[in-house]
Amino acid sequence: MPGPAAALTARYGAGAEPKAGPWNDTIALLLSHRSVRGYRPDPLPAHTLETLIAAAQSAATSSNLQTWSVVAVDDPAVRKELAEVAGNQKHIEQCPLFLVFLADTSRNARLAEAEGTELAGQPFLESFLVAAIDAALAAQNAVVAAESLGLANVYIGALRNDVTRVARLLGLPPGVAPVFGLCVGYAAEGREGEVKPRLPQAAVLHRERYDAEDAGHRAAYDPRMAAFSARNEMAADTWTKRVIARLGTMRALNGRDRLKDALIALGFPLR
Amino acid sequence: MPGPAAALTARYGAGAEPKAGPWNDTIALLLSHRSVRGYRPDPLPAHTLETLIAAAQSAATSSNLQTWSVVAVDDPAVRKELAEVAGNQKHIEQCPLFLVFLADTSRNARLAEAEGTELAGQPFLESFLVAAIDAALAAQNAVVAAESLGLANVYIGALRNDVTRVARLLGLPPGVAPVFGLCVGYAAEGREGEVKPRLPQAAVLHRERYDAEDAGHRAAYDPRMAAFSARNEMAADTWTKRVIARLGTMRALNGRDRLKDALIALGFPLR
Repeated sequence: MPGPAAALTARYGAGAEPKAGPWNDTIALLLSHRSVRGYRPDPLPAHTLETLIAAAQSAATSSNLQTWSVVAVDDPAVRKELAEVAGNQKHIEQCPLFLVFLADTSRNARLAEAEGTELAGQPFLESFLVAAIDAALAAQNAVVAAESLGLANVYIGALRNDVTRVARLLGLPPGVAPVFGLCVGYAAEGREGEVKPRLPQAAVLHRERYDAEDAGHRAAYDPRMAAFSARNEMAADTWTKRVIARLGTMRALNGRDRLKDALIALGFPLR
Repeated sequence: MPGPAAALTARYGAGAEPKAGPWNDTIALLLSHRSVRGYRPDPLPAHTLETLIAAAQSAATSSNLQTWSVVAVDDPAVRKELAEVAGNQKHIEQCPLFLVFLADTSRNARLAEAEGTELAGQPFLESFLVAAIDAALAAQNAVVAAESLGLANVYIGALRNDVTRVARLLGLPPGVAPVFGLCVGYAAEGREGEVKPRLPQAAVLHRERYDAEDAGHRAAYDPRMAAFSARNEMAADTWTKRVIARLGTMRALNGRDRLKDALIALGFPLR
């Protein structure tokens, strides 16, 4: 595992490192995260899925409501359709383990129905948000557990391009919606990727009050991201150009402008 | 660190353990998570904050948009007001490090403004959701890093009781909203807590398609949670009773039924 100096340089770029604090192998593991989009077909060790889900369930969950679920999808035909939803991301078909994390308010709704009562506090945006955050905290624990086992991964937010189709494919009842997918497996040779630089810490971390001054953070970060992109066979665009490309047009949303209506139709009133 | 058998029994209860898969100290750390609500005043080692934020920034972020920020709040007067928002949770005033994680679409909005363009894809529910998920993935990495250093923590979702007041206290510009807080510090003596049992894995993990059958999961879990509650000086309520108490009434939402309107006023159109 790399020490703090090398790990912080990889994450922030030479000259942009924050001060090094306490350090250990777990922190080195966290800093070494890379999203991997090419997998070997090799199966995972027996019961890896159970270990990842145990890690996921060990994450905090709001008021212990546990309003998330996960579907492990093996069926190649379903994987193919999920890959289509996500703009033909081939690694969804390729990875040995594919998980769809779900915001799930239906389990508690069934509980209330069985008890002859209703959950008056559930039809709000807050409940969907709690469920999505629960799912994210759980998934991130699964990611850390996977990486500790030498397994690569990548989140698939593009399942939100068409949550209606994903819900139909997975047989989701009302009150359940996909939040994102997760590919897990061994990185294919040459696809291990490189640690991606992030914005300088001072752009993200504020003290006492929010500081809206850019203070040159973006100017320093743009060439780092352009160099990273050039090294990784993408167009050598700055971060600024990438943000504008991703959010500058409705077309780039790939249908996610319809997410609100789709969630309401899936049984989240979002009041 | 406990081995898989002891860790899985603590997390799921005797007789409810999933099959044990691959194991290591990082996975043992993840399974040992507890939320801690009492802290010693002892300060953290120098630059712990920078280490936690480096871990947080190393988490995946949708399209590398990095639409989250965090404020470290030391000012006792502000801590006191934040504790009030959260229903007088004293640990917010007590813990040596208190972080407020933010959904932040304003950094990219400022970028676009500086470039003389607009982000047509930003005023949607999707953008708020991406920002909240980004914040959650980042925060969970900070939590894992903190726990690896022997530091306890607890998420404070109750900051959402009044996001308007939190935004004012922290000077948040339009397009920034608090998602949750996080206390970090050394657990006070006797406040280390006990690993909380979760629902059986089969209640949360589905294979191929969602399975809405309860199959006795709740009946098995209820007495485990009642026993946990009794041991931890809470009323010996079942999980079923706690879910209904938390979500059965509007009053229990503590104002979070107004979250949608408050977010819109803070500059998230949520289209």
